[in-house]
Amino acid sequence: MARLSDSLSDAERADLIGTAHALADAARFATLTHFRADGLEADSKLAQGFDPVTVADRAAERAMRDILAARRPADAILGEEYGPQAGSSGLTWVLDPIDGTRAYLSGLPTWGVLIALTDAEGPVFGLIDQPYVGERFAGGFGRCEMTGPLGLRALRARAARPLAEAIILSTFPEVGTPAEGAAFHRLSRQARLTRYGTDCYGYAMIAAGQVDLVVEAGLQAYDVAAPIAVIEAAGGIVTNWQGGPAQDGGQVLAAANHEIHAQALAVLAAG
Amino acid sequence: MARLSDSLSDAERADLIGTAHALADAARFATLTHFRADGLEADSKLAQGFDPVTVADRAAERAMRDILAARRPADAILGEEYGPQAGSSGLTWVLDPIDGTRAYLSGLPTWGVLIALTDAEGPVFGLIDQPYVGERFAGGFGRCEMTGPLGLRALRARAARPLAEAIILSTFPEVGTPAEGAAFHRLSRQARLTRYGTDCYGYAMIAAGQVDLVVEAGLQAYDVAAPIAVIEAAGGIVTNWQGGPAQDGGQVLAAANHEIHAQALAVLAAG
Repeated sequence: MARLSDSLSDAERADLIGTAHALADAARFATLTHFRADGLEADSKLAQGFDPVTVADRAAERAMRDILAARRPADAILGEEYGPQAGSSGLTWVLDPIDGTRAYLSGLPTWGVLIALTDAEGPVFGLIDQPYVGERFAGGFGRCEMTGPLGLRALRARAARPLAEAIILSTFPEVGTPAEGAAFHRLSRQARLTRYGTDCYGYAMIAAGQVDLVVEAGLQAYDVAAPIAVIEAAGGIVTNWQGGPAQDGGQVLAAANHEIHAQALAVLAAG
Repeated sequence: MARLSDSLSDAERADLIGTAHALADAARFATLTHFRADGLEADSKLAQGFDPVTVADRAAERAMRDILAARRPADAILGEEYGPQAGSSGLTWVLDPIDGTRAYLSGLPTWGVLIALTDAEGPVFGLIDQPYVGERFAGGFGRCEMTGPLGLRALRARAARPLAEAIILSTFPEVGTPAEGAAFHRLSRQARLTRYGTDCYGYAMIAAGQVDLVVEAGLQAYDVAAPIAVIEAAGGIVTNWQGGPAQDGGQVLAAANHEIHAQALAVLAAG
């Protein structure tokens, strides 16, 4: 059976791409209104641990849902803040209004707005937007490009190089459970360089050809849908740590090419 | 005896501030020419470990030295790449053309250009510039401000809050020697949130009122001179981990206010 996204007309694709950018524009406004504002405080969604949700997070998702209600009422929505909403088109918008709320709370520019369009098989188009820097990374429907301070550029993940020369990014040095953390650090010790604190910006750096691997654990579906679309469009690979689909979240291994992906999988699996 | 920097006329100060911005403009051009360029490679200054120096690093320092030779020939220079140059004015320009070369190599926006003016007593004016984001943080000579994507804003370090509510930034989770790392993590465990990977951008976030503490070890003099000037102008404090001067590098404890500085010092000292 043909994949739904493959049967869309050019006009339908153009409308979907235009809608995605309209969502990102609205989220940019909502998130920047509160970024680095004095007295920014977060609620705690979880009784244990620290999971900030800001006013901006909710305002951005509401703004995006308002646009979808007007432009794409038949599409389903899966949003971080307001949960799932059913649709009839077979297409779902997956929204994370602020991925990296800890970075946002700290004034750092590595958070982002994640917008993905998925069909039953998975992500087909995605945007990773960094409102403060003014960067937007787009991939899917034959597109693979970024706009930012240096203008419009094509995205292309980097060519294969040995693990000993690879750059790895992750958000926290703990990386998931103790067992997951041990596997991660086994990999990290064999690489040239590991940097932390990158949130969704790390996936953008894979697509932009700047780094080789992003390794994360404990993610949600809305954390990975847009990165999968953008990285795959740029020639990279995103799976879980066993090489299976990553679109439901959990462990994520994003790689610039098949060779470094295979090397990283082997090290992560060698318990 | 009066401090040299206190005896400068308004015209002399304006010339020095103008020179600092001219240096930052030149470094912005030199560093952005190579940022995220394909095939960017680094030499290794150190036989052991990883200390990348890029073409951009050296080009930026040369561009700044050319400006100083023309505009301020009597001032001394201490630069990361080309070492010290003597002067006769009693003033020294302390230059780090790319602080955070690992971030630069990874395409991440937390590196920066550090420019400081010092007299015999220490830093009197400093700039922290992030060329890609287009942000510049300035402090000293009665100025304390930033320019960036959201325009011109005053800098003011945040008010005191308990350590349990504080945000700590550092560049690497190891933080110096094993003993230094143990002291750092003792402090980190008592704070609300710790983020890594920030390089000089962390100091800018202290001055901008976004975070409470930056804790680093093993720094060089050129890593800290500009941050000291900017943070002190914004009402913050920068010392070593014993509360003494930080301007020669080594351990650095940058704090938004005296209260959180004292709390952090006590935890770092309790071995």
